[in-house]
Amino acid sequence: MHKKLFIPGPTEVVKEVLDAMASEMIGHRMKEFSELYNAVEPKLQQALYTKNRVLMFTSSATGCMEATVRNFSKKKILSGMCGAFSDRWYDIAVGNGKATDPLKVEWGMAIKPEMVDEKLKTGQYDVFTLVHNETSTGVKNPIEEIAQVMKKYPDVIFAVDAVSSLTGYKIDVDALGIDIILAGVQKCFALPPGLAIMSVSPKAIERAKTVENRGFYFDVIDMLKYDEKGQTPSTPSISHIYALNVQMDRMLKEGMENRFARHKKMADMVFDWAKSKGIELFPEKGYESWTVVTMKNNKNFNIGDLNKELGKRGKTISNGYGKLKDVTFRIAAMGDLMPADIHELLNDINDILKI
Amino acid sequence: MHKKLFIPGPTEVVKEVLDAMASEMIGHRMKEFSELYNAVEPKLQQALYTKNRVLMFTSSATGCMEATVRNFSKKKILSGMCGAFSDRWYDIAVGNGKATDPLKVEWGMAIKPEMVDEKLKTGQYDVFTLVHNETSTGVKNPIEEIAQVMKKYPDVIFAVDAVSSLTGYKIDVDALGIDIILAGVQKCFALPPGLAIMSVSPKAIERAKTVENRGFYFDVIDMLKYDEKGQTPSTPSISHIYALNVQMDRMLKEGMENRFARHKKMADMVFDWAKSKGIELFPEKGYESWTVVTMKNNKNFNIGDLNKELGKRGKTISNGYGKLKDVTFRIAAMGDLMPADIHELLNDINDILKI
Repeated sequence: MHKKLFIPGPTEVVKEVLDAMASEMIGHRMKEFSELYNAVEPKLQQALYTKNRVLMFTSSATGCMEATVRNFSKKKILSGMCGAFSDRWYDIAVGNGKATDPLKVEWGMAIKPEMVDEKLKTGQYDVFTLVHNETSTGVKNPIEEIAQVMKKYPDVIFAVDAVSSLTGYKIDVDALGIDIILAGVQKCFALPPGLAIMSVSPKAIERAKTVENRGFYFDVIDMLKYDEKGQTPSTPSISHIYALNVQMDRMLKEGMENRFARHKKMADMVFDWAKSKGIELFPEKGYESWTVVTMKNNKNFNIGDLNKELGKRGKTISNGYGKLKDVTFRIAAMGDLMPADIHELLNDINDILKI
Repeated sequence: MHKKLFIPGPTEVVKEVLDAMASEMIGHRMKEFSELYNAVEPKLQQALYTKNRVLMFTSSATGCMEATVRNFSKKKILSGMCGAFSDRWYDIAVGNGKATDPLKVEWGMAIKPEMVDEKLKTGQYDVFTLVHNETSTGVKNPIEEIAQVMKKYPDVIFAVDAVSSLTGYKIDVDALGIDIILAGVQKCFALPPGLAIMSVSPKAIERAKTVENRGFYFDVIDMLKYDEKGQTPSTPSISHIYALNVQMDRMLKEGMENRFARHKKMADMVFDWAKSKGIELFPEKGYESWTVVTMKNNKNFNIGDLNKELGKRGKTISNGYGKLKDVTFRIAAMGDLMPADIHELLNDINDILKI
């Protein structure tokens, strides 16, 4: 039996999108492909509120994190660290031999604008990496306020990992001045994993042109060169691009603002449920993610047993991540899940736990 | 109308495999995923005649080419160059700051064992990269004889790109002592593009452990660590792994030897047709690829017009690659295409060209 996914990605994929994954093949150097590719990019730009070019990488979002550190830094990277995935970005930078400093807060805490300001005013950095919605801790960093600080530092590339929030939470890329935003498609985009998207500002493009040792597979300049003719440098996942095209149409038909409101509504349902049951939220107050609601296991539920029982009812939620495995649990409400799905899930949990 | 693909990848995908691409999603940290992953790897080992571990990268094969240069060389790479894709491997190595020497022959010529021997005997190299079947020129390099030379140099990692031949032509990885073999799944594997596979010998693993700056997304040691638990470090293309599982069952049911014979038969049909029409083959005699038959356009056909007419009949072939665009054309018979498909294609071409 299929288990409906209330985990922080992959998420549920609707039949129409799954069907598009089964499209018959075309050549990636044929005009049919360029037509498809060129149809998708403007839809992505619309959903991201940006005029920047949006590239599609056949990789997970981790690949785009690597692209960021290899393409845009000549001096030093400041890496905001507040959980497993932002910690990974630091590791990726260091693993690629890039000079990098941590801006680290405890897991569960958010990165504040003044912390960023204090570091950047030293003038040492040319890239700042921020994970907007830290999937491991359920912290939503205050991207709007941090963006205001970033405007004081026009020479610093503002790179945002919005893997678990993009298209589920409004991020006005151009208004916020975000140079790089990246995400995998298996979260709020609600596609199967296997493709990542990344928008690149003109400022970032100019920087990349001056950076050496950008590598090959994640070389943004090469990607852009092919992007101009509606292609990619090497063979892309055509199936995913077909599916993304269908999904972007669905998304824009729903309306982005409606989509964000639906995500907020689902989050509120989980927040209200937690409150009513005396379950505490894990993140610092005021910085709770709307797409990955992360709760303390202060009621000492056996999450493994709960998931086994939920499995029999065709659903699954997520335990904590890494070192938070046993002390937190997570309910993700992303993509094409509906309030009715969350309602049914919470009822099932109440029933199983007898709470 | 769908055009049946007689191009050198992507190739035709059968309905059963396309259907698997539309599988409902599971979590990549759930046991359902590890069961799937662990089911696929032994089937790949069987098809590749190897006991080496076989990794699955969510990328094109170009990603695995980058993995090779970043993971296995501490001294200098010798890069066999005989066409666009082997030239690319050299560029990837240099683009990653790796000391690399070319072993270059003219496009259309093959790399000979004695050329490899002469270079390697200098003792300068620790990796030799060879593209087995150069998709751009239709040259099949003599891998069996080169493998004999490689056995004289146990400290040199033998890395083979078999993108357009693997599972269409017999490559006994362990008998030939191939340390690294890599391919995308959109050629003879007959899946949609978006996944690449790479086998890694124990010798190559030991080497990688001593190499610094391996990066992150294509770090083989990290991939192997997760492989041990039936996972990948970041979210993989689960759809492709479902499809690959189905396809490997189909492949092993056909029998690898039968599969190779079918590919040979299809190649012979094209060779015979070319000969009967006075069309010359492009590659050096004795080194003609069986999967990507590359012909000189010595009869001055208008390949663009031919393809337009073929398109109306639901088929497409390929013009030459890069600088060979106008002087060659290519018919690829890969994956799940059948002799009857080639028969029909050649009849259509005869009919259109009135030859």
